[in-house]
Amino acid sequence: MFNPAISKLTAPPVSVVQDWRASYHGRLGELIDMSQAVPGYAAHPEMTAALECAAADPESARYGRVEGDIELRDAYAAHLGAFYNASPVAEEILITSGCNQAFVAAVLAVAGHGDEILMTRPCYFNHESALGMLGVGIGYVDCHAANGMLPEIADIEAAIGANTRSVAIVSPNNPCGSIYPPELIDEIFSLCKARGIWLILDETYRDFLPEADARPHGLLARDGWQDTLVQLYSFSKSYCMPGHRLGAVTAGSAFVDELAKIIDNIQICAPRTPQIAVTPMLASLAGWREENRQRIAARSTLFSEVMAELDGWELLSTGAYFGYVRHPFSGTASIEVAKRMAREAGVLTIPGTFFGDGQEDFLRFAFANAGRGVIAGLPERLTVLDS
Amino acid sequence: MFNPAISKLTAPPVSVVQDWRASYHGRLGELIDMSQAVPGYAAHPEMTAALECAAADPESARYGRVEGDIELRDAYAAHLGAFYNASPVAEEILITSGCNQAFVAAVLAVAGHGDEILMTRPCYFNHESALGMLGVGIGYVDCHAANGMLPEIADIEAAIGANTRSVAIVSPNNPCGSIYPPELIDEIFSLCKARGIWLILDETYRDFLPEADARPHGLLARDGWQDTLVQLYSFSKSYCMPGHRLGAVTAGSAFVDELAKIIDNIQICAPRTPQIAVTPMLASLAGWREENRQRIAARSTLFSEVMAELDGWELLSTGAYFGYVRHPFSGTASIEVAKRMAREAGVLTIPGTFFGDGQEDFLRFAFANAGRGVIAGLPERLTVLDS
Repeated sequence: MFNPAISKLTAPPVSVVQDWRASYHGRLGELIDMSQAVPGYAAHPEMTAALECAAADPESARYGRVEGDIELRDAYAAHLGAFYNASPVAEEILITSGCNQAFVAAVLAVAGHGDEILMTRPCYFNHESALGMLGVGIGYVDCHAANGMLPEIADIEAAIGANTRSVAIVSPNNPCGSIYPPELIDEIFSLCKARGIWLILDETYRDFLPEADARPHGLLARDGWQDTLVQLYSFSKSYCMPGHRLGAVTAGSAFVDELAKIIDNIQICAPRTPQIAVTPMLASLAGWREENRQRIAARSTLFSEVMAELDGWELLSTGAYFGYVRHPFSGTASIEVAKRMAREAGVLTIPGTFFGDGQEDFLRFAFANAGRGVIAGLPERLTVLDS
Repeated sequence: MFNPAISKLTAPPVSVVQDWRASYHGRLGELIDMSQAVPGYAAHPEMTAALECAAADPESARYGRVEGDIELRDAYAAHLGAFYNASPVAEEILITSGCNQAFVAAVLAVAGHGDEILMTRPCYFNHESALGMLGVGIGYVDCHAANGMLPEIADIEAAIGANTRSVAIVSPNNPCGSIYPPELIDEIFSLCKARGIWLILDETYRDFLPEADARPHGLLARDGWQDTLVQLYSFSKSYCMPGHRLGAVTAGSAFVDELAKIIDNIQICAPRTPQIAVTPMLASLAGWREENRQRIAARSTLFSEVMAELDGWELLSTGAYFGYVRHPFSGTASIEVAKRMAREAGVLTIPGTFFGDGQEDFLRFAFANAGRGVIAGLPERLTVLDS
């Protein structure tokens, strides 16, 4: 009755974990939700006012261009140009309804049935399930703690086969929080270019790098980047607006033409209200984004310190929104550990099982949603599980 | 470099046609846009106020449940129950970002590579290209003017093969405007049920039936409808909010669970602002929807009268938003006819070529966007082409 490619997928991981909330007895204080990657602080008042204003504008009730509003594509191209010291143009931008949609569209543009996309593992769960859903094959490159949860270039090279159409990486990484050094990104790009395949680079968390004014990579300044690079971005995290669903793809204009066919079928166009509202914010909220970068970076540092105190727990990597942690209950399925944490400690995390095979010893903590006081209180919660 | 399934698709038809605007010399008055299926009148002020209010609500900046906000699912289930004299529940509703996304998700839930979906032809272009994009096969059932541009049940039966997973129909039809009688819908449902396949029924235009208080079909009141029926709907037309992107699927709860996995990958959730805003409008704008139904029905009647006056032009069918018309330039490719109409007469329509093979003699006129005065002035414009 159903498509087996869909039947065999698990239910949406975040929904599964959110449904554990009710199991917590509540005796240790409020439930700590470190499951979903969402900012815990509110959008800037200017942003909220702009959304209000845009929603009341009759223009936002009309269909827009499939590729996105030209004003936003122009503003985003200029913003990217300043950030990467490069000169992308509006024709190289396509606006999507969130970064998951950007990933689905980018993959469909390059891979069909029988093709394969190479991913690093642990994987962002929705990337893995999106490929499964589309009937596109997956090759895996495992990341190890000894290498800071980053892939080895030799492992990527060895994993590229005749059917590989793209290498998909996420930096800052989800779920690991590991930050790919510019040199590594550059090497992966060069490898993809040499092998005639695409590099899909998901930079959803790029506004949360640990260093101020750091440039994640220099790819957009390389000649002919359009023949190899597809870069993905989300406005959800940086502007605290996940519920409005807005993302972007940066790629060559020929690639954008292919994406437009896909987005037209899936969505016609991204919702207009957030497109109109966010356009002037790219420039005007630069200072606010920097404050948030510092705020989240401080949480990552604190999370490292807290984890170092805890016997049996090991932080493998951290950065941007995430910490990837080895739990002390080796031999117990990660989903059982995470359920017990929810029930007995009132702490929600995503169990390793959702990040791919071989991840049963791990949990992902997302701390964008948890303030410093909450993070500092984690040891008290987690030691409850020792008994 | 690209996925051939995407490369071989044409550019989005509405974008192609919109790009002809500039070719019009302007000497016959304002350009008449009868291409895209959009209401030409504005949203109700209550709706606009509700959108404004919802966009300013911090809740709408947060992720929602993958299946949609429970308040909207409840309200929509109750609305459907009253409309169809049935009793669907919230668990049988999934909210999407527009009805195209609803179609993509419904198809993916039932069909993978090697499977086939049966469509009526002329086809809604995005349904055909969505299936091509997903690598799902298409079977066609041709509709003929002699049968009011409706399919013959015997033709559907003959076209169902071993790989057919679903019959997809659109009523009121896009592009034909033909209204499927309840008995025909019932027969198609029974056929699907007997053959163990799904009926995907797109009712985007169901609020624009020619008769007041008409019930499009009785399927939702049939026992066990959940094992056969998947019904699609769009809020875009009925509430004049296409730019906000909101649609819905009604299906059994097991089907909704499959859809949730797909929507999570594609979108996480539909945008929250329109979900929050439209919820109370389902009940409160009933009278306004009825006024608009009458307004659009009157345009359909007027369009019939106008076409009857014109030598060489033949209206094959009309209803809801559309009229499907045989143009008088047989032997000329429909895209050339439509381009010439844009350039010389300042009238935008969608050429038959976008509705599938064998449609070169036809054009789709969408009159939701054109008032009665504009429709009445069509003969003056179209006779320009005789010279």
